[in-house]
Amino acid sequence: MQKHFADRLMDAVKKKGNPICVGLDPRLDKIPEFICNEAFKKFPKDPMKAAATAILEFNKGIIDAVADIVPVVKPQIAFYECFGAPGVQAYIETLDYAHEKDLITIADAKRNDIGSTAEAYAEAFLGETSVSGGGNVAGKSGVSGGADVAGEVSGGATMACVRAFDADSITVNGYLGSDGIKPFMKIAKGEGKGLFVLVKTSNPSSGELQDLFVLDKNCKGENAKTLYEIMGYYVDSWGACDLGESGYSFVGAVVGATYPEQAKKLREIMPNTIFLVPGYGAQGGGAADVKPCFNKDGLGAVVNSSRGIIFAYEKNEKFGPEGYAEAAREATIMMKEDLKAVV
Amino acid sequence: MQKHFADRLMDAVKKKGNPICVGLDPRLDKIPEFICNEAFKKFPKDPMKAAATAILEFNKGIIDAVADIVPVVKPQIAFYECFGAPGVQAYIETLDYAHEKDLITIADAKRNDIGSTAEAYAEAFLGETSVSGGGNVAGKSGVSGGADVAGEVSGGATMACVRAFDADSITVNGYLGSDGIKPFMKIAKGEGKGLFVLVKTSNPSSGELQDLFVLDKNCKGENAKTLYEIMGYYVDSWGACDLGESGYSFVGAVVGATYPEQAKKLREIMPNTIFLVPGYGAQGGGAADVKPCFNKDGLGAVVNSSRGIIFAYEKNEKFGPEGYAEAAREATIMMKEDLKAVV
Repeated sequence: MQKHFADRLMDAVKKKGNPICVGLDPRLDKIPEFICNEAFKKFPKDPMKAAATAILEFNKGIIDAVADIVPVVKPQIAFYECFGAPGVQAYIETLDYAHEKDLITIADAKRNDIGSTAEAYAEAFLGETSVSGGGNVAGKSGVSGGADVAGEVSGGATMACVRAFDADSITVNGYLGSDGIKPFMKIAKGEGKGLFVLVKTSNPSSGELQDLFVLDKNCKGENAKTLYEIMGYYVDSWGACDLGESGYSFVGAVVGATYPEQAKKLREIMPNTIFLVPGYGAQGGGAADVKPCFNKDGLGAVVNSSRGIIFAYEKNEKFGPEGYAEAAREATIMMKEDLKAVV
Repeated sequence: MQKHFADRLMDAVKKKGNPICVGLDPRLDKIPEFICNEAFKKFPKDPMKAAATAILEFNKGIIDAVADIVPVVKPQIAFYECFGAPGVQAYIETLDYAHEKDLITIADAKRNDIGSTAEAYAEAFLGETSVSGGGNVAGKSGVSGGADVAGEVSGGATMACVRAFDADSITVNGYLGSDGIKPFMKIAKGEGKGLFVLVKTSNPSSGELQDLFVLDKNCKGENAKTLYEIMGYYVDSWGACDLGESGYSFVGAVVGATYPEQAKKLREIMPNTIFLVPGYGAQGGGAADVKPCFNKDGLGAVVNSSRGIIFAYEKNEKFGPEGYAEAAREATIMMKEDLKAVV
């Protein structure tokens, strides 16, 4: 088994000297023309396959350009799913390529469901799914993650275990309560992997539900907490069962850079939780806004930038589309400098 | 454009004379051995492809057996994603096969994200994604759903629009507020499709957050509503903009059969909302439990059963594994009879 997820992540942050996560959100219309043309020449009659090929090629360029600088990448699966099965294959290969380059991966998938379905998602993204050629074998679960059954012959057909996505961690939505989180925790813990639960999201309307005040048990409204704080208390308690040597948990929290006041409260509620912080850059968050997400030791958070890095070439005339990877590298170095002022 | 989603769904319910949704959650270990063996013989060295082939074959048998009885099917994507790109392809082909058989489809994917990413999900599941071979063409969005660009030549390469999943509707999680819902609404409305927002889920821990009481504006706790009720008010308001001739909205709600008291309150809050009701059968909900989900006209809800129908052969010795489809048909007819007592 791998080391504890939080230790792996914090080690990588210390080694690289920064907490940057590069968001791989490859919007096709922003991918340089020369990459798209090449892919469409290769698959002129299969636009899904061509699009997926362009995305993967683009991602590889970005990963090559930033792998020696940053500790983490976070591909957002929506931009791959829109190209069907080839898009999903490009997602899988992006994760694999990032691993080859020693990057930690966060599958930004925001999955959620009731227990048995959450288990299937957890196996898909963090673990393995056992595949039995026999089917319907008493006592064997087709969705059990049992590594020990690989190669076993049963019911006349070979059983195998397959890994669909093989990410180091996944983002999840906790609206369904602990039933929907614990299956992810179980698989993550056994694999040295992690999860990040949505607590306070970076979008403008996140307060509609997350900022609502929740009644205390005496129905007096004194010391009332907001829903995002309650979610924070849950995340803290879920993660407390297994802290790494770094003092951090494998159950992280998503806390948007666009809400620094709320982040400050959440940092107090969840001292041992690693924050995944979206909203820096294109969404408006700056270095000062992310500061409250960190602990006093300068650790405990990773800050994501997607568009601001991967499409930096659009905003800088020095680089043409051909220089998109160098532009991404320069933007990453600038972000590193920017964050030095606060962590 | 297709007719309004709610009208299509209610017409189908009336035509078939029942509100049953068959959940296509094909857990591989429960798929009959003869189907798995066949698939593994075909793809002996590719367990993902073999598993995906078995799933699709199994689903086609179920769909053939129930298509003349029920109005709706709901494949749960977790059980397909765990087999990677081939699994996702099996999901897409399951949706297509259901359409061929005139069934309405609900993609049970519980997707959610901030605005621009939610738009990509909405295009993937309900709409179309434009694919430009030229890439980076000023003024063209690669994720825009513009049907009018199909075939247009731009930047030296053909532009096309692709449909990844082509479901009639999708389940979504509203924790991020209206930013994360409106992109789904926009695409759904333009396509005659729909969405179902998680309001009160069927799982045991759903109350941890959903049942919390939320303070009123005067902080007195009088007339306090629960979080699931607040979510219900949001869903009602989101859907009010576009009711069909049936009087129902294209923005539906997921309300678990396992919480009939809560369903009763939600029926009052959301009179024009179609409820998607999981939790009947294997999860413990019975006919009496789903009754509060319906309006007085006997409409306004579809009731899902997954395991209880698709794996009925396991519980009935009359059918062997070879008779799984007939067993599913009999279980569906029994469910129809069971529901007649209440709607």
